Amino acid sequence: MENYCFGVDVGGTTVKCGLFQIDGRLLDKWEVKTNTSDNGSHILPDVAESILAKMEEKSLKKEEIVGIGLGVPGPVDEHGVVPVAVNLHWGRKELKKEFWELTGINTMAGNDANVAALGEMWKGGGEGYDDLIMVTLGTGVGGGIIMKGKIVAGTHGAGGEIGHAPVNPDETESCNCGNVGCLEQVASATGIVRLAKAEMAKCPEEKTKLNPQYLSAKSVFDAYKAGDDMAARIVERFGEFLGTALACFTCVTDPDIIVIGGGVSRAGQPLIDVVKKHYQKHAFQACKDTPIVLAQLGNDAGIYGAARLVLD
Amino acid sequence: MENYCFGVDVGGTTVKCGLFQIDGRLLDKWEVKTNTSDNGSHILPDVAESILAKMEEKSLKKEEIVGIGLGVPGPVDEHGVVPVAVNLHWGRKELKKEFWELTGINTMAGNDANVAALGEMWKGGGEGYDDLIMVTLGTGVGGGIIMKGKIVAGTHGAGGEIGHAPVNPDETESCNCGNVGCLEQVASATGIVRLAKAEMAKCPEEKTKLNPQYLSAKSVFDAYKAGDDMAARIVERFGEFLGTALACFTCVTDPDIIVIGGGVSRAGQPLIDVVKKHYQKHAFQACKDTPIVLAQLGNDAGIYGAARLVLD
Repeated sequence: MENYCFGVDVGGTTVKCGLFQIDGRLLDKWEVKTNTSDNGSHILPDVAESILAKMEEKSLKKEEIVGIGLGVPGPVDEHGVVPVAVNLHWGRKELKKEFWELTGINTMAGNDANVAALGEMWKGGGEGYDDLIMVTLGTGVGGGIIMKGKIVAGTHGAGGEIGHAPVNPDETESCNCGNVGCLEQVASATGIVRLAKAEMAKCPEEKTKLNPQYLSAKSVFDAYKAGDDMAARIVERFGEFLGTALACFTCVTDPDIIVIGGGVSRAGQPLIDVVKKHYQKHAFQACKDTPIVLAQLGNDAGIYGAARLVLD
Repeated sequence: MENYCFGVDVGGTTVKCGLFQIDGRLLDKWEVKTNTSDNGSHILPDVAESILAKMEEKSLKKEEIVGIGLGVPGPVDEHGVVPVAVNLHWGRKELKKEFWELTGINTMAGNDANVAALGEMWKGGGEGYDDLIMVTLGTGVGGGIIMKGKIVAGTHGAGGEIGHAPVNPDETESCNCGNVGCLEQVASATGIVRLAKAEMAKCPEEKTKLNPQYLSAKSVFDAYKAGDDMAARIVERFGEFLGTALACFTCVTDPDIIVIGGGVSRAGQPLIDVVKKHYQKHAFQACKDTPIVLAQLGNDAGIYGAARLVLD
């Protein structure tokens, strides 16, 4: 009986692994260090060894495993091939094939942000829905689009790359991607700090709880919750950019729900409220009440989604 | 043998009908007047009568017909139900069921803009691809998203409603939809006239081929092609809005191709070129070379797409 599956979230410093029942119950999770030496050639063998060891520890046979899902930081095509994954020092890699050869177990692979969106659909903020847009507000802005329960990978592996939607025609600095005016430049943790610096430079004499030496997305939201006027203007600006961008995205795919995750989303419901206010102002009539909710799986979204990949 | 199908494009003044071979060859097309009296209750019976008459004329038996596809100006859910279609004076209508009762032939239905996108995928500008974004630049701006060969209808029937993407934060007037700053306000035929009026008001003394009494999208593009400076600035502004919006859309679904149709697109390759220039400036790296092409089916896109609906 195939009752179990593994979800693996390969990151630049650690690989997170989870053993799941096929109903979504997480039975065990652990981490493996990411060894990026020798062009990252040890990563897959290390993970395979760790999974096979876990199977031995739990007395699981191959016949009991539906498969292993891998989420990786890079584009992944429908054949489970990665053209390049900079953070892992990988060039082209046939993930699905290589991992099958290492383990003898069916393997599926997807981009990490897309896989996290699938995880949130399965057991997180989007549970019960099968069409969603997920936005991950971290150091950068990632995203994932799920339609009819499946990841939208896109023709060039760029489905859900909403962090690079052009949203700010007044921007003068370049984004990491090379373009100018991306959502990531105003809605990521670093983007919020940029907005804060700009606002503080505009009103240098204004009394504020914000300390220019210790600016972070968290400190901005903390000051906002404490009623600070300058923080309120910064958060409004962030909310306007993100809410308007979401209104743009929903008139493309018109999803059931929007899920917001990533470190910045720890600011909680006040963040959702300000984004929703601006979203509703700009969204097409039929989509104005599309729910906007917090992600619920935190750093585990990747392992949940990776496991879900093999359950179709 | 099921060798034929019908495609029907129901508009507010006429209903276009087409008889197709299932390989996409258009064998015959004709029109029926749209009778919107009595809450539009004559429309479906009139169309059904016309199709049954055509079958008799061509000596076609029901067994030879795969089905009849209907495109209508309103949202259509997956069960072929329209909640409301203002232009046809319809309230809720069970299209699929009613038309089956009238004809005894399998019927499918979809929103007209989405259906036109499907038509362009099948036998038009997007032939050979199955993931596309279509933009229709007419009196308004319509759109349709096709993924894996299927229409993205969306949770509220608003999939592909890209004419109402918020793109212009400096807008002061309201769009027909009630929002402010929609793509439709700057990229439709009427939107281009608005841009032209604004530009002419800004530089009232400037010599130009544009006649303020006879402004139209066509006159603006004609003057642009003739080297008029003011027309060039208007067309650049249009191209910047539409190109940037398309860059925003492609980082959501990352399609194979973008198809531009509608009356305004008769301006031809110069229109594509200016949109492409701005698109490439703002698109995410992986999507910068996504082709942008002209639609090819003109007013027949609707009947092609409607026919294609029944061929899955």
